[in-house]
This record gives sequence, C-alpha cells and structure tokens, in this order.
Amino acid sequence: MTQTWATSGVDLHLELAGRRVRAGLEQALRDAVQSGRLAPGTRLPSSRALASDLQVARNTVADAYAQLVAEGWLAAERGSGTRVADRIAGPDPAVEPPVPAASRPARYSFQPGSPDLAAFPTAAWLLAGRRALTAAPAQALGYSDPRGRPELRRALAGYLSRARGVTASPDRIVVCAGFAHGLHLLSHVLAARGGTAMAMEAYSLAAHRDTVTAAGLAVTPVPLDGHGAVVAQFGTAAAALLTPAHQFPLGMVLHPRRRAQAVAWARDAGGIVIEDDYDGEFRYDRQPVGAVQALAPGHVVYAGSASKSLAPGLRLGWLVLPGGLLDEVVAARLLTDRQGSVLDQLTLAEFIDSGGYDRHVRRSRLAYRRRRDRLAEALARAVPPVRVTGIAAGLHALAELPPGQDEEEVVARAARRGLLVEGLAAYAAGPSPAGPPARAALVVGYATPPQHAFTGALARLTAVLADR
Amino acid sequence: MTQTWATSGVDLHLELAGRRVRAGLEQALRDAVQSGRLAPGTRLPSSRALASDLQVARNTVADAYAQLVAEGWLAAERGSGTRVADRIAGPDPAVEPPVPAASRPARYSFQPGSPDLAAFPTAAWLLAGRRALTAAPAQALGYSDPRGRPELRRALAGYLSRARGVTASPDRIVVCAGFAHGLHLLSHVLAARGGTAMAMEAYSLAAHRDTVTAAGLAVTPVPLDGHGAVVAQFGTAAAALLTPAHQFPLGMVLHPRRRAQAVAWARDAGGIVIEDDYDGEFRYDRQPVGAVQALAPGHVVYAGSASKSLAPGLRLGWLVLPGGLLDEVVAARLLTDRQGSVLDQLTLAEFIDSGGYDRHVRRSRLAYRRRRDRLAEALARAVPPVRVTGIAAGLHALAELPPGQDEEEVVARAARRGLLVEGLAAYAAGPSPAGPPARAALVVGYATPPQHAFTGALARLTAVLADR
Repeated sequence: MTQTWATSGVDLHLELAGRRVRAGLEQALRDAVQSGRLAPGTRLPSSRALASDLQVARNTVADAYAQLVAEGWLAAERGSGTRVADRIAGPDPAVEPPVPAASRPARYSFQPGSPDLAAFPTAAWLLAGRRALTAAPAQALGYSDPRGRPELRRALAGYLSRARGVTASPDRIVVCAGFAHGLHLLSHVLAARGGTAMAMEAYSLAAHRDTVTAAGLAVTPVPLDGHGAVVAQFGTAAAALLTPAHQFPLGMVLHPRRRAQAVAWARDAGGIVIEDDYDGEFRYDRQPVGAVQALAPGHVVYAGSASKSLAPGLRLGWLVLPGGLLDEVVAARLLTDRQGSVLDQLTLAEFIDSGGYDRHVRRSRLAYRRRRDRLAEALARAVPPVRVTGIAAGLHALAELPPGQDEEEVVARAARRGLLVEGLAAYAAGPSPAGPPARAALVVGYATPPQHAFTGALARLTAVLADR
Repeated sequence: MTQTWATSGVDLHLELAGRRVRAGLEQALRDAVQSGRLAPGTRLPSSRALASDLQVARNTVADAYAQLVAEGWLAAERGSGTRVADRIAGPDPAVEPPVPAASRPARYSFQPGSPDLAAFPTAAWLLAGRRALTAAPAQALGYSDPRGRPELRRALAGYLSRARGVTASPDRIVVCAGFAHGLHLLSHVLAARGGTAMAMEAYSLAAHRDTVTAAGLAVTPVPLDGHGAVVAQFGTAAAALLTPAHQFPLGMVLHPRRRAQAVAWARDAGGIVIEDDYDGEFRYDRQPVGAVQALAPGHVVYAGSASKSLAPGLRLGWLVLPGGLLDEVVAARLLTDRQGSVLDQLTLAEFIDSGGYDRHVRRSRLAYRRRRDRLAEALARAVPPVRVTGIAAGLHALAELPPGQDEEEVVARAARRGLLVEGLAAYAAGPSPAGPPARAALVVGYATPPQHAFTGALARLTAVLADR
C-alpha cells in the first residue's frame, strides 16, 4: 500500500509493505530516513492525522512512532511533535559538497557585466510587486501573450520612447529573459530564414558568440576603430550585432556617419542591425547618443534589459522588433519557453509607471559617475602611464597598460592579491582581431563592488598596476 | 545637441536642433509630442531642473514651456508641474488595438490545463518573497548557477523526495521555465546526440509535440489502453515522454507492469523515459502512484512544475536528471536563456521551506476533490449516458459522450452558450490514434473556474450535454 498523506502537516509518500500495518509503517519510515529521503529535522504528521489518513487506530501509529524514537530514528519533542532525528543522518542528498577553497570568491571584484547588486532597491521593488500582484487580474497568472504582459509592454514603450528615443509600440515588443535569450531567439529566426552569418564586433562577449554559433550561424568578426565598428566589413551577413552607445568592451561610441552607414547597409543588403543597448541608461557626458533604431525601425532590432539598471538575476530583457520579424520571433519563443515569468513583469511595469525605475536609474547614474571619476583620478595619480578610456558611459572602463606590460600577468597578479579583474584578450573574437587597442588592457567593471568595498578595491587595483 | 536629462523627475531624450536654445527646445518638444513619443499626461522635468541640466537660464526653459502651453501642446497645473496635454494626442503607441468582440473571454471556462488562478495564495507568496529577498545575499541577484538557485534546488530535493518518492539530489536538479522549457532543452540534447524520434502518448498536448518536432525529432505516437501507454511500441525512439501518474488527457494511471516495462526498455535500448508528473500533487484515491523515476534514476528524467500547484504564469518547472544527461542539459540551458529568474526561485524555496507550499497544495486538493465529486454527481444525475472517467487524480476529467453524439458539435454548442470546453480530438497525435476511447469525449478542466463561478459553469455544462 502506498500512501500520500493529504490532511496532515506535510505531504509524505511512503510505501507500506505487507499486511501488518504497524510493522510496515515502521519499516517504511526506517527506509525513508536511512536512504536520506526524509531529511533530518523533517516534521512528521501527528499520530492522529496519520491514523485518520491510513484509517487505522491512532495507537498503531503512536506505537510505531514510539518504537522508532526508541531506536533513535525519530525524535519526539514536547509540544513540537515528532521529527526525523538529527544524529542518524543517512546520506543526505540535501547537502551539496563544500566549495573548494580555491574557488571561493576573491575579496574584491572589478569583473565587468554587473551593477552594484547590494544597491538593488529591495524595498521599492517589493512594494511595486505587492501593488502589481494585488492589482492584477487573476487571469494574469495564467498562460498569456508570449510577447509578455501588456502592462509591461506598454510601460516599456513609453519609457524607451521618452528616455532612449526608441520608436516603440507595445505590440512590437517581446519581453525575454535577458539579452542572451533575445539573441538566441533572433539567431534561430535568422538561421531558419537561411541566414549563414552574423557580423559581430571583433571585441565582444564570448557567450554571445557561442549563442550565435549554436544557432548555426557563423561569426563574421568586424574590426573596430576609433569610430566604432567598421560597417564596410559587414559583407553578406544576415545581421550585425552592435553596441552603438558604448562599445563593449572598448567603450567608444559609434560615430554618426557609421550609424547612417549601418542603417544603409541594412536597407541595401536586406540585413538586420541588432542594437544591444546594454547600458544605455548610463551616459555621463553630453554627447548625442540616441538609439540607432529610431533611424530605421523597420531594419533595426532594439534590445535592452534590466541586467545593468537593476540586476542580471531578474532575467528581464526586451526586444523592439521590426514588423517583419515579429511573428517569427514570437513563434520561436513559443517553442522555447512559451512566455516569461509574469510576476517580475508585472512588478517592473508598476516600478516604471510609478517613477521608481527612473529614480533608481538616476541615483545609480550619479553613484557610478562618482566611481568613474574616482577610478580615473586614482589611476592618473598612481600610475600615469596607464590610460583610462571608454568612460563617457556605462559601468566599465578600459585601463590600457603601458607598453611592455603583459596583460595576463597583471590579471594573475591581481588575482593573487584577491582582486578579480579581466583582461581585454578574453573578449577578442579571434587570435588577432583588427583595430585598437594596440596595447594590452584591463576591463574594469567599476560598478561591481558594493559601495563599502569600492575604496578598498580601488586601492588594490592601483597597487597591482603600480606593482607595489 | 542631444540631451538626456539626468537629474530631474524623469529621463527624457530630446534632440535640440540649431543654435537658438529656446527655439530648439520648443521644436524638439513639439516634435516629441506630435510623434507620440511623449505620451499625453507625461510629466516634464521642472524648469529649474531642466535649466540646470541644459546649463541655460531658467527663464529660457520657463518661456519655452509657457509658449507650448499657449499653443496647447503642454498643460501647466498648479502644484503638479507641466505635463503633455491630453487633447493633442498624436498617434499613441501606448494603446493597443481593442480586442474584437468575437475573441472576448466566454462567461465560463472548463478549458483544461489551469488551476483556479483566483485561489493563488497572493498574501502568502508576497510574504515569502519579502522574507526570501531580505535574507538572500546580494550576490544572489547576479549571474549564478544555470541549474537554478541552490536554495530552491535544496528545497525541491527535499519536497520531491518526501512527497513524490523521487530520488532527488540538489545537484541533479535543473530549474526551468515550466515543463515546456524543460522539454525543449531535453529534445535539443537528444537531437544533438543523434536521436531521431521521441515516443509520445497517442493523446497528448499538441504544443509538446510541436516542441519536440521543432528540435528535429520525429514523434512516434504510442497507443494507449486501459493500462496506459503500450510500452512495447516505443521501438527505437531516443526517449519516451509519459504521464504515468495520470495520463493527459485520458486520465488512467500507468499500470505497475507497464512502469517496469518502461524502465526495462530504457535500460535495454539505452532510451530515456521522461516522466511528466504535471499534476502529481493532486491524487484523490488510495492508489499506489509514486514516481517511476525512483525505479531507475539513471534512466528516467523526472519533470514537475508549479503550473498546476500554483500558477502557470510563474514559469517555474524542474527536471531531476540522470547524471549522464546533466552536463548536456546545462550546456543547452546556458545557450538558451542562461538561467531562470532569481526572485521567483528564492520565493518558491522559502514558500516550500516554511510549509506554505504544502498547506496550499493540501487546501487546493480538498477544493478540487469537492469539485470533482460535484462534477461526477451532476453529470450522473442530469445526463446518465455520459460516462465520467479519469477522475482518480488531477484537475480534469474525461466526459465520454453517448454514441452518436458529435464531439465538435457539442463543443460548438457549449461555446454558443458561453462555456469553453475542449474536445478530446484536439489532443490526438494523428488522425486516428490507436486505443481508447472508442467514443467522443470532452476534456473538462474542472479546476479552471474561480470558486464563485463553478456552480454556474457546472449548470451550463450539464445543460449543454443534456441539450436542454
């Protein structure tokens, strides 16, 4: 007889063998504890509840419990019922092996790609979540539009239009699980259309290149110069992935002439420009950098996310799509994960509508600008040969090493001193991509440390670079 | 000059043309309102804040605002600043076309696949979310393990082990965005291994068959009889997708002999059994239905989700994987969406650990059992020739129509009377799958209506079936 107890404190699934109820129950509990299936500390149903479920006398259950307590498998505590004993722990599947010391997090990190996670606006987010979930119709919790909740698509259309100059309407937006997921969907759609290659900046994220090649597209590396990607080299690629507002990781802005060229390429060659506006909210200097998408909404996919403005763990990103791509992307989405998590979407919609998102971005922008200034000043003072570039925007800077310094060696030296930082070489699309920089460099994610650790991390970085 | 205002109430992106600041600002605002980029009601920065951002005299901005108010583009309200006027609405991208009347939701729905969304435990979920987010380390909001948060994998391992008899350890669990996403990942892994086909029950979800074929696998329909799937017909498929605890949609349980055969097939043929335990929490009768996975954890993927126990919109599902599949599934996951949303995962972990999940499942089980009993009684009384089957578990029943009744006609008649319900034919893998039922049937999702609408929905259903 197998029994799942339905009406008592917790659900238990036990297989009772044979016809003698008490002996069968005792053996089933013993087996479950010994195998680790019932973890130490697990609370058992009361003998009354269990007896009622099993339709046996309460004494039968109480006697079985008493026997197992006597044997040490269970522990009875006055007022808190019966639990699986702590000291007889079988193999415990609920404990993961300890993390080896070597992979413990370093003391400081300037690894790029993350905002200050300790600055996540927890209280405001929880409040927005409460408001959103309370206000939402029950149907919002069911299966709904694979593009995402209409509340969020409306809020994003308004925000992207006013804050980033994007030509956005809610019905052209697909909410996805961060930009990586959007790129996965786009790559599959392009491959299914017969596309063979994606033009990608010669320095870019390896994970993005992996996503593109996994979809069956070849990567065409595009050289970079001081004006950004060299559009003339897009060739016959089906699409070009660009970071126009702030090249990742080199940090230059795509020159207005290149923006126009990219759009002309898309129009003439029938290609798609994918505009990865990964840190568009964080612009510190007075330079015109609206979205390229506004130049040609029928040829450019605008992509953004909350990964830098809030936290990557939210997995909230969005694509603003040309009409001609929409149906295919939605179809691909239905076959991948159907739709995104509703609660985070409703919460972000409320957070934008209530002004909380703008307030958080503004506060973060000021904080990161201050960090950027301190980084630039500290390095200029302590290690003048190191040139800091790419700092007009974003959450990272390029620290170009003086001639003769070996990038890998500097990264290793930093790690030995408890500071994580990345070398530029990690972002190169091939062994020797064309274009700048001529020298080795570190990619310094200055938003990464929590506020209290920034000063220490900066001191560590200058010490490493000065090799003191 | 392009300007994004950083320090005022909201972020605005405007392109100011020419050298005359006031005229340029006026024109930029006019363009933005006319094009719909600034939606009616949008609040503008104060003239003081904007002047400071632009480094111009405050009067210049105030004069520009006054001019545009005079022209009717903006509206100034005492105490609430300046907003975009309502009456000059250009094309408004924030409004979606109205839903045509024909596609408005019907009054009642017995469509299967959903729990009662109005019974979602909103207060308890919000409380768990607050506790979880407050307790989580900041690093939890960053990029983390693609398998999912360790807190949730530990909680699931404990729960699945104790409540479903699954052999589960946290390191073998991959949290995914509902079962559809898990099936997508598994299908891609099997196809990449050279698999050519997936054995699927002859009645099953069309969306699942689409997911499998999109990954490049053929669907091998497996006949069903009173003992469930006919395992002898799995043949050379790379994997077999089964619903052993409660066949979807027919509702029978996979016979113990068939369970053993399925495991033997997996061992002998090197195949994988995918156990879709989509409603395993909801078992009403005293029948032994533990997870098949426990018979052979090295050959069976156990799959579950919160879609029936909480809500599909959460997009929370989980795979318990054989060790031999783990790395490939994780690699596929990294290339799809990297990892799931952290906040929902932390919340579910807290909800399970605090006992809230068990309490909600128990409450739901009692409520759905009552509905099931009422459904069976009402149909037996009102339309005795209709046979209700598959009701030992789950959230749906099969209402087999008397000979001569046309399924499609009954579904259409129900729709005309404002009741959504589905015919069995919608689930058939081919034009004439082997096995039962011999007659036409409705698939009645009796958990779908909110509690207050259940009585009305049931009355409508009996009226439709009795053709009164």
